[in-house]
Amino acid sequence: MTKIIAQLCVSLDGCYAGPRDDEPDWFKSTEAAGFFRITRWVTESMAWRDRQHLAGGEHDVHSEVIAESFARPGAYVMGRRMFEGGEHPWGEEPPFRNPVFVVTHRERERLERQGGTSFTFVTDGLESAVAQAREAANGKDVAIAGGGTIVKQALELGLLDELELHIVPVILGHGQRLLDVNLGVKEGIELVVERTIATPEVTHIRYRVEGRAPLVLDDRGGAYPELAEQG
Amino acid sequence: MTKIIAQLCVSLDGCYAGPRDDEPDWFKSTEAAGFFRITRWVTESMAWRDRQHLAGGEHDVHSEVIAESFARPGAYVMGRRMFEGGEHPWGEEPPFRNPVFVVTHRERERLERQGGTSFTFVTDGLESAVAQAREAANGKDVAIAGGGTIVKQALELGLLDELELHIVPVILGHGQRLLDVNLGVKEGIELVVERTIATPEVTHIRYRVEGRAPLVLDDRGGAYPELAEQG
Repeated sequence: MTKIIAQLCVSLDGCYAGPRDDEPDWFKSTEAAGFFRITRWVTESMAWRDRQHLAGGEHDVHSEVIAESFARPGAYVMGRRMFEGGEHPWGEEPPFRNPVFVVTHRERERLERQGGTSFTFVTDGLESAVAQAREAANGKDVAIAGGGTIVKQALELGLLDELELHIVPVILGHGQRLLDVNLGVKEGIELVVERTIATPEVTHIRYRVEGRAPLVLDDRGGAYPELAEQG
Repeated sequence: MTKIIAQLCVSLDGCYAGPRDDEPDWFKSTEAAGFFRITRWVTESMAWRDRQHLAGGEHDVHSEVIAESFARPGAYVMGRRMFEGGEHPWGEEPPFRNPVFVVTHRERERLERQGGTSFTFVTDGLESAVAQAREAANGKDVAIAGGGTIVKQALELGLLDELELHIVPVILGHGQRLLDVNLGVKEGIELVVERTIATPEVTHIRYRVEGRAPLVLDDRGGAYPELAEQG
């Protein structure tokens, strides 16, 4: 059965990139500096390098995690900004090898690329893009490819079945936060840990998203019995 | 050798409590609602219950983690707000069983409690409290007991050698964030994962704090060679 999944590299303080600034050369921006730090382990992995037609890299557990993340989706949903940043560097054979649905306000003709990747531009919102991707995925999973804004939006809208975080042991302090979602008072999004792969460089945790639920008080295990009476 | 250590329960989005509000009954506050959700696993553990003179609880890996956190420190440093919230409920035999140094602006006479706990009020800042606690710890570790504000301050000042996070699989969206530290542009605090205990309810990750370091660009493994030229 198709699941709507997402995975993202984050710093320990939950940033998927540094803060945006006015630097015209993106590679020199504060956004890139944070992004590069938390995705360094990816570029060192064999599975990623292989998909970018680069030699070398480590064949290790990180590489297996990445290989798996390439294998599962039958379609992708992507934000406009990620697409525009990647369109040129990905070249004629982008690493997705499946249909990609780009959420945008601007209409544009579908692009066909080599190796199975196509880009379809969806102008009626994220939910529509997910529905179209689900259809195209043919029973495989739909991955929200990113960037962080659209993953956050999917989480807020309750569209995600699974979220895998690759938590990198660095604190950025300032940056764009994935989980800074808008919830009600005394409400949380509950998750269940499905898998943890612990390594010194990255902690890969896969969560099943249970959804929004009220935050309930408890009586602190009987330490404060008056709480139980208050309800 | 004495280490300065801290450990805190946080939500997946890094909150150690919900947001503060004006509710006069703390137990009904938004702050408590978040705090209760992320510390529920603690109150269910045998080691915590035992220390609070309560019966029952689970003897499991969480309980061992808590027992360990009680065993390591030879002294504690605590914020004023945590002390004031705990002074009454902890009663005549508080769970610390070691000297506690409370950082505050108000002078107050040292309190002696049963079971080895004392409270010394330090009015000349966190660094002084840590120095006094180090002296009192007699070669054992010094734990920054909390609340979150003072742990964050210790991290910002570079005082922490070790930080253990108990990451609970819930997203609060709003709340008080432990790692929202004030760093320079393109600077991070680097950590090294020392131990991970993965369970469905909590992920316990112990980090060694390496300290502030510049965020360096890389050439994306050769994918964008112009980056290497830019330096």
